[in-house]
Amino acid sequence: MTLRPFASSFLVVGFVAAAVSVASAQSAAVRSAIEAGNKKFGAGVAKGDAAGVAGLYTEDAQALPPGGDAVKGRAAILKMWQGVFDAGIAGAVLTTLEVDVMGDTAAEVGTFLLTTKDGRTADRGKYIVLWKKVNGQWYLHRDIWNSSQPPAPAK
Amino acid sequence: MTLRPFASSFLVVGFVAAAVSVASAQSAAVRSAIEAGNKKFGAGVAKGDAAGVAGLYTEDAQALPPGGDAVKGRAAILKMWQGVFDAGIAGAVLTTLEVDVMGDTAAEVGTFLLTTKDGRTADRGKYIVLWKKVNGQWYLHRDIWNSSQPPAPAK
Repeated sequence: MTLRPFASSFLVVGFVAAAVSVASAQSAAVRSAIEAGNKKFGAGVAKGDAAGVAGLYTEDAQALPPGGDAVKGRAAILKMWQGVFDAGIAGAVLTTLEVDVMGDTAAEVGTFLLTTKDGRTADRGKYIVLWKKVNGQWYLHRDIWNSSQPPAPAK
Repeated sequence: MTLRPFASSFLVVGFVAAAVSVASAQSAAVRSAIEAGNKKFGAGVAKGDAAGVAGLYTEDAQALPPGGDAVKGRAAILKMWQGVFDAGIAGAVLTTLEVDVMGDTAAEVGTFLLTTKDGRTADRGKYIVLWKKVNGQWYLHRDIWNSSQPPAPAK
């Protein structure tokens, strides 16, 4: 009788440890998938491939850019990125700092660096992306960012 | 024998329905807690109470403001908000659009309106906040926003 509480705590600890271990393995896998998505994003920007970049977002994604209203849906997001490329952006490096996984949603905090064709820094800043898993694949679902650079001085 | 698969599916459906129902009740409760937090945030801004607003963030929170680097920790966030109040902001309305709950973390997408003492719109925009539950209470943990207004024209 005296052993039973001990044995059952032991079992509970075992289950919890197993659950934590499975959860952290899953988190690591999701973080890898997100980092792979970010590499594809960078490769798409380098090629000026707005359709490729937009294809990394869910169909009903929303991009929340500085200086404008929410951009809703993959087609509108494609146009937005085409505009960014037309304005001279030719490089994007996305660096994942944190990932919080919750089932088929993940929240990523990261930093970005945007460069021009001649390699100059066009902007650097930070972002939060809510990723969504659709048919086993992770897509950007909500995407907000801002610049870490002070606003350009008024001329 | 023929009834058993039917009975067990029925049980499974029952469990799943109960789980979904519990999950959505929890989600609704978390959304309410977040909306209550946002009201406190607005009340704190109206009073110019930077300590009160900072107290709505976790101890190790990060605010990710436009035009600057990440602001890390409650003390630094207090200073940031004090600076915003000193610059003339005296009202904040935060409107929750979406909440995604995952255990002790929740991702909120919303819009904001900042006003001056005389009621003019100082800025309007959108945000994503990652909330964290600490000792049964929800706090802002990661907070990023940007303006929806076009940048001021160069003079």
